[in-house]
Amino acid sequence: SSGPVAAATRAMDELLRRAVPQTPAYELREKTPAPAEGQCADFVSFYDGLAEVGQRAELLGRLAQGFGVDHGQVAEQSAGVLQLRQQPREPAVLLQAEDRLRYALVPRYRGLFHHISKLDGGVRFLVQLRADLLEAQALKLVEGPHVREMNGVLKGMLSEWFSSGFLNLERVTWHSPCEVLQKVSESEAVHPVKNWMDMKRRVGPYRRCYFFSHCSTPGEPLIVLHVALTNDISNNIQAIVKEYPPSETEEKNRITAAIFYSISLAQQGLQGVELGTFLIKRVVKELQKEFPHLGVFSSLSPIPGFTKWLLGLLTTQAKEQGRNELFTDSEYKEITEVTGSPVHETLKGFLSSGEWMKSEKLVQALQTPLMRLCAWYLYGEKHRGYALNPVANFHLQNGAVMWRINWLADSSLKGLTSSCGLMVNYRYYLEETAPNSIAYLGSKNIKASEQILSLVAQFQKNSKL
Amino acid sequence: SSGPVAAATRAMDELLRRAVPQTPAYELREKTPAPAEGQCADFVSFYDGLAEVGQRAELLGRLAQGFGVDHGQVAEQSAGVLQLRQQPREPAVLLQAEDRLRYALVPRYRGLFHHISKLDGGVRFLVQLRADLLEAQALKLVEGPHVREMNGVLKGMLSEWFSSGFLNLERVTWHSPCEVLQKVSESEAVHPVKNWMDMKRRVGPYRRCYFFSHCSTPGEPLIVLHVALTNDISNNIQAIVKEYPPSETEEKNRITAAIFYSISLAQQGLQGVELGTFLIKRVVKELQKEFPHLGVFSSLSPIPGFTKWLLGLLTTQAKEQGRNELFTDSEYKEITEVTGSPVHETLKGFLSSGEWMKSEKLVQALQTPLMRLCAWYLYGEKHRGYALNPVANFHLQNGAVMWRINWLADSSLKGLTSSCGLMVNYRYYLEETAPNSIAYLGSKNIKASEQILSLVAQFQKNSKL
Amino acid sequence: SSGPVAAATRAMDELLRRAVPQTPAYELREKTPAPAEGQCADFVSFYDGLAEVGQRAELLGRLAQGFGVDHGQVAEQSAGVLQLRQQPREPAVLLQAEDRLRYALVPRYRGLFHHISKLDGGVRFLVQLRADLLEAQALKLVEGPHVREMNGVLKGMLSEWFSSGFLNLERVTWHSPCEVLQKVSESEAVHPVKNWMDMKRRVGPYRRCYFFSHCSTPGEPLIVLHVALTNDISNNIQAIVKEYPPSETEEKNRITAAIFYSISLAQQGLQGVELGTFLIKRVVKELQKEFPHLGVFSSLSPIPGFTKWLLGLLTTQAKEQGRNELFTDSEYKEITEVTGSPVHETLKGFLSSGEWMKSEKLVQALQTPLMRLCAWYLYGEKHRGYALNPVANFHLQNGAVMWRINWLADSSLKGLTSSCGLMVNYRYYLEETAPNSIAYLGSKNIKASEQILSLVAQFQKNSKL
Amino acid sequence: SSGPVAAATRAMDELLRRAVPQTPAYELREKTPAPAEGQCADFVSFYDGLAEVGQRAELLGRLAQGFGVDHGQVAEQSAGVLQLRQQPREPAVLLQAEDRLRYALVPRYRGLFHHISKLDGGVRFLVQLRADLLEAQALKLVEGPHVREMNGVLKGMLSEWFSSGFLNLERVTWHSPCEVLQKVSESEAVHPVKNWMDMKRRVGPYRRCYFFSHCSTPGEPLIVLHVALTNDISNNIQAIVKEYPPSETEEKNRITAAIFYSISLAQQGLQGVELGTFLIKRVVKELQKEFPHLGVFSSLSPIPGFTKWLLGLLTTQAKEQGRNELFTDSEYKEITEVTGSPVHETLKGFLSSGEWMKSEKLVQALQTPLMRLCAWYLYGEKHRGYALNPVANFHLQNGAVMWRINWLADSSLKGLTSSCGLMVNYRYYLEETAPNSIAYLGSKNIKASEQILSLVAQFQKNSKL
Repeated sequence: SSGPVAAATRAMDELLRRAVPQTPAYELREKTPAPAEGQCADFVSFYDGLAEVGQRAELLGRLAQGFGVDHGQVAEQSAGVLQLRQQPREPAVLLQAEDRLRYALVPRYRGLFHHISKLDGGVRFLVQLRADLLEAQALKLVEGPHVREMNGVLKGMLSEWFSSGFLNLERVTWHSPCEVLQKVSESEAVHPVKNWMDMKRRVGPYRRCYFFSHCSTPGEPLIVLHVALTNDISNNIQAIVKEYPPSETEEKNRITAAIFYSISLAQQGLQGVELGTFLIKRVVKELQKEFPHLGVFSSLSPIPGFTKWLLGLLTTQAKEQGRNELFTDSEYKEITEVTGSPVHETLKGFLSSGEWMKSEKLVQALQTPLMRLCAWYLYGEKHRGYALNPVANFHLQNGAVMWRINWLADSSLKGLTSSCGLMVNYRYYLEETAPNSIAYLGSKNIKASEQILSLVAQFQKNSKL
Repeated sequence: SSGPVAAATRAMDELLRRAVPQTPAYELREKTPAPAEGQCADFVSFYDGLAEVGQRAELLGRLAQGFGVDHGQVAEQSAGVLQLRQQPREPAVLLQAEDRLRYALVPRYRGLFHHISKLDGGVRFLVQLRADLLEAQALKLVEGPHVREMNGVLKGMLSEWFSSGFLNLERVTWHSPCEVLQKVSESEAVHPVKNWMDMKRRVGPYRRCYFFSHCSTPGEPLIVLHVALTNDISNNIQAIVKEYPPSETEEKNRITAAIFYSISLAQQGLQGVELGTFLIKRVVKELQKEFPHLGVFSSLSPIPGFTKWLLGLLTTQAKEQGRNELFTDSEYKEITEVTGSPVHETLKGFLSSGEWMKSEKLVQALQTPLMRLCAWYLYGEKHRGYALNPVANFHLQNGAVMWRINWLADSSLKGLTSSCGLMVNYRYYLEETAPNSIAYLGSKNIKASEQILSLVAQFQKNSKL
Repeated sequence: SSGPVAAATRAMDELLRRAVPQTPAYELREKTPAPAEGQCADFVSFYDGLAEVGQRAELLGRLAQGFGVDHGQVAEQSAGVLQLRQQPREPAVLLQAEDRLRYALVPRYRGLFHHISKLDGGVRFLVQLRADLLEAQALKLVEGPHVREMNGVLKGMLSEWFSSGFLNLERVTWHSPCEVLQKVSESEAVHPVKNWMDMKRRVGPYRRCYFFSHCSTPGEPLIVLHVALTNDISNNIQAIVKEYPPSETEEKNRITAAIFYSISLAQQGLQGVELGTFLIKRVVKELQKEFPHLGVFSSLSPIPGFTKWLLGLLTTQAKEQGRNELFTDSEYKEITEVTGSPVHETLKGFLSSGEWMKSEKLVQALQTPLMRLCAWYLYGEKHRGYALNPVANFHLQNGAVMWRINWLADSSLKGLTSSCGLMVNYRYYLEETAPNSIAYLGSKNIKASEQILSLVAQFQKNSKL
Repeated sequence: SSGPVAAATRAMDELLRRAVPQTPAYELREKTPAPAEGQCADFVSFYDGLAEVGQRAELLGRLAQGFGVDHGQVAEQSAGVLQLRQQPREPAVLLQAEDRLRYALVPRYRGLFHHISKLDGGVRFLVQLRADLLEAQALKLVEGPHVREMNGVLKGMLSEWFSSGFLNLERVTWHSPCEVLQKVSESEAVHPVKNWMDMKRRVGPYRRCYFFSHCSTPGEPLIVLHVALTNDISNNIQAIVKEYPPSETEEKNRITAAIFYSISLAQQGLQGVELGTFLIKRVVKELQKEFPHLGVFSSLSPIPGFTKWLLGLLTTQAKEQGRNELFTDSEYKEITEVTGSPVHETLKGFLSSGEWMKSEKLVQALQTPLMRLCAWYLYGEKHRGYALNPVANFHLQNGAVMWRINWLADSSLKGLTSSCGLMVNYRYYLEETAPNSIAYLGSKNIKASEQILSLVAQFQKNSKL
């Protein structure tokens, strides 16, 4: 074939042939010198030169497909191991056969990644490469088992490098470099930072902001956690995130509760690398050191997806006119008084735009059913047996308890359109997080408070899903 | 069985059963919570409590033997892979079968090491554990393929963690913490540091001392390199290591050569992890930045084992009285004039004690034959095809040239008893190290200077080994 | 007397009596213990508790008036010295008499300031106190020779403490603490910082921002200098101060000129303490180190007061209708075409509001006369023989040359209303600054470029002031 | 005159003429540019080039003599002030006359020092210069009132610069730079540091070592304080200063007392600048912060001069044979049993050499009288009404109580030959140091413990001095 596309793919193939190191024979694996620095650096600069995500996806797909495991080798070594199983000899022989097999199972591109990791800035490059790969997969630009395998290999390598032993906990204050505050600000995905005063508030009195950095790149946030220091478990975000500076100085003895109100990954290439759980644990220890009498730990969490899930239900209901399986009759009536008919359609409009907040009556009418529905969404909706909602799943895995759903807790447009203004607290009883975590991961058992369980019961009684 | 030994081994078995995490089923490998922190910490404190190297060896042996790979699983998964080879299905199936096989090939103790690495100080603990393991192997306290495999697994893990991307180059000066200078001083294995003035000299003008630290433990030397900055290639160590402070200040433009006169591993648990080669490369870059006109790079290296090798030859000769295959007749005669008969026995005494240096005549008589023999020892004696002498092997692997053997180059007792006072320069021609390294590692071809080759030729002509 | 005011002044008098230390007798001056820490701390907290500038002024006035020099003592010791002049004795006697006199001349409040300086934060307090004193003098809240003397004593003490030997030069970058960037931003008096992007630009590529801090309070700006790195002498500020980030990275070899475009005192209490001159000198050295080929140094300076001076002239002209001593006839005619009559009054309105910029015709008509008038304002208008314009006086004292007046150089509202949009370059020829400075300070001789001198000549020919 | 000496003094005079800046006329004092940097730098390099202390003394003497106050000016301005006293005019006139007089009283060399202080390293140079001046005065190389005056001026300037507000407290640990540990070690004058292990001990567990540095030269010790952390008031130095490392780790709750066992000035040029008192105060605060329950603060101090004082007494006694006014009859008899006759002469020998320690009997016989005599020496011997012993005077000025004399408290040769092995504790009762200090400095009243007072009473009863 010809044309610029063909030329581009030819260039890619040529680059890969040149840049991906040969896997040495098993016997020579320790005596083989590292490939010339330039060889792997070539890959890096070629890749960096690809401006479009599509081109990068193409290259990564070719790498995954063409430079993986040598299946023939694997089969041959497998046969060797099986034979020894049938005709046993001394252990050394079996162990070496297994080692040969293990060696054969290492995909060739792993060598490329390994050598890149040794370059200046190499690990950072690989984090970016994996971010691209994840994006390309999300955009369906590249697919298939080879790519998934390569993603798994990369994630495994990153997990070794970003092991908690190599992570530094850093605190952000107004004395931190502007560079850092800008990055923290930009990576804040839960409650976007509005301006510098908002940011100054989030690192000022009664607030803490921590991040993990890798020890090789201090000052570079990987994942960020925001905490509010209060005297009770916050039930709304407006009391925490503000755009004017506080007048007060912090009084240690007024602080009894720590509220994790935002946790955001700053490097998308580290998705799936266990950072958030460790960060919360480390911050808890740090706070206990600073405030010896601090006793209450809880999140104040968003419920992404709730509005969407609810709109889906309404759509279904709307299709079958006259059906009403979400609300009680009196609720239905109350709502209709505001919306008129058709209820479901109108309600969908109100909810998706957040306009319902403007009608005091509607707000009142919706409180009971929405709380109930939300409890079910969080507690009852599952994916492979675990909580469907990713935030819930994260905190439950960490061993937290689903503690309280809060009404009118986030009245920002984002809060309204993604979770009808509701937020939820996941509470960390420190003594119980370990057994809770095991119970959730093992038996898929969600530990929840009275409030949640009661709302779920109401749902089961009143909603006919 | 009974008695304290039995009790001790029972305690070990019990500890291992409790502390080594179960390997989760393949399907659950991502959904399994980390073992409780205490579980792996138990292993650490139990191990630290074992005071004797023998006990530690015993525990490590049991760990290697009892918690390795499940051979049945490996066989089963191998069979699965082989079957797919014969009855091909879509790639995803094969890739998953291979991944299951890969998973089965991971020894169970790897999970223990992995979780320990996440503890505070965990990686440092594993470095110490491997140091113990190497010592126990050297002392034959523990043996066998399982232990060798575990050592390999540990080395692999350490190689990931101590990857050059995570190493910081630190320079030692008189402004460095005393802690660091004490560690550098204690880890100096080549030319032991005599006192603080000696140390102050080694970090003063016309000297450089660098080390690699891991980014998670800055200030903690892993491997140390000492450099002298001169205007020619030093031919003896006395001119470099001195016990009085220099009077001069450093003049940049008098510096044209950098002599690496000592490289020592400070953490024995990192043996085999490629640090030395990287350290030399990084230091070369650092020096080039500081001294743009620096052009000559060379080691001034010891020749450990030369005296021992020579004494071995003399012993053989001594057994067959009258034979003289090492010296020419005139050399033999000259030596006899000093030693009397039996020449070989007396000479052995002289050489092993370093006493020969006291006889000017003997010094003169031995220069020619010892230079020749040493050249052969370095150039001609091999182990699996590579240089027998480990220092030679290290520099040749790095791509250096065997450049010059120096007479009376180390007149310390250590220098005399280990290498008859001889030292050797391995010279680094920066443009040629890469091809030299490949040539040596591939074709086992040693690149040497005229002087060396001429001495080797003399040996081949005059010595009848 | 009675009432709250009387109570307040009684409280002041009592505080002063208690807090200002007694001056020990000359003989005991070295054997007198420092006053209790609390004594001077009392003054500090009392003063800090005074919220209004008027109250502070009152207290400072009373301190100056009531706790100065003991004139009787001074007279007595003066007499002693004079007597020795008439009846000479050995030198020791005269020297001691002079020392007693010197001691008597120290105002008592100096002891208070001295002891405050030793408290934690004491020096910072005194800087603030002097800032208040200067403000109070400017507002005429307090007057008289005693206050002027106290101001002089304070300035002398601050000059010792803020000696250039104790000042650290710090560079501001985007990696500096936000705290620092906020302070730098707030203290920028010449070209106010509009937002964070503007600030980021001022510390980004092709810009430098430096400040002096005292070594006891690192990170706290005392005086700030902004520099643009260019390849010619900038003739307008719009090219330097921008609100969007630059796309380029800095190329060292494109930089040939350094333009000081803003210098601002960040601590008003340090007025008159020679900081600016030292800062420019240190920054020049710093830049020469970073850019060895940098050859051109110049300011791009505002001309505060020019508009005001010009409006004053126009007012005078306006009073005597029909007079026109500022413009040539053709200029006058051209201007009238836009303004109509009465010219001077209308023009005043245009100039004071900056509205003239909107008329292309007027802009054209005014260029020649305004340039000429500005040259005269800078070069010809004097105060005690030195340049009336304070910025001119500062740079001329430093030894700079009045180099170029620039038309439409600052089109901001501030630029228009304070200097009709004109700016001026003072150029630093490094070899000549020392003699220039001496010539200016000694003979009051202003060194100026051809352009300036030619404009001044035009003024003298065309304007009939 | 001619010859090299004359040439040298001519060179000095010429240098001084050139380098010492003219004092500007009073009217121009603020408008006079600083002298060219080179001018004062000339003085610095000329001075540094003088290798011998005698030459430096000569130069300093000439500077003091020839560049002091203009006595004519002083007399003239004094007359002006006196005249205003007789013919009063408005205050401004008197204040200005006084200011002119004040200005006239500033010695010309002060300008030189002032400008030197602004050079890089200038303040450090002046500290060294004053150290030289003090040494030269001690060696009688230079004398007279002018030199004393210059010394006073320098001390005054240094006191402003080394004000406690500009001093940083730094702690020395084994992690401090070797440079710092070497300096601390070398400046230790009380109990000289024997080797690095001794030093490591002094910065290890149960020990603290602090120093003041100036904020402009961090890491450079000015004055050093060593503290032992114990559970009682140490009665000997052997328990504190040891040459082997401690095995223990520090347990906070075992620490109840802080013993200041050494304070040494590291920069002799700062003699008389009040540093020691401030250092003790700051360290007390620091220790209270670290150990909230620490309650006891005391010195363990040497008694320099005691042996010398005692030998003087013995000499007097020896001259008048048969007299015995120091010992009781039974003491005298006991001593004679060991020494034989003549007692006083023999005893002098024993005491001056420290040999008496070898005779158990003599040790026993001397304990009572030496304790008594030492108490009198410390408590009763005065200089201008204050304690003669300088260490006693220092601690009493600080407000400490003379608390306990300790027998066999320093058995080192230095301890024996300077204070017969005795040491003394000065105890700091924090609440009482301020009134004690005032009482001592004012009424010369020494506060002492029961033990001391009782020993003094015994002295007064038994010794007939």
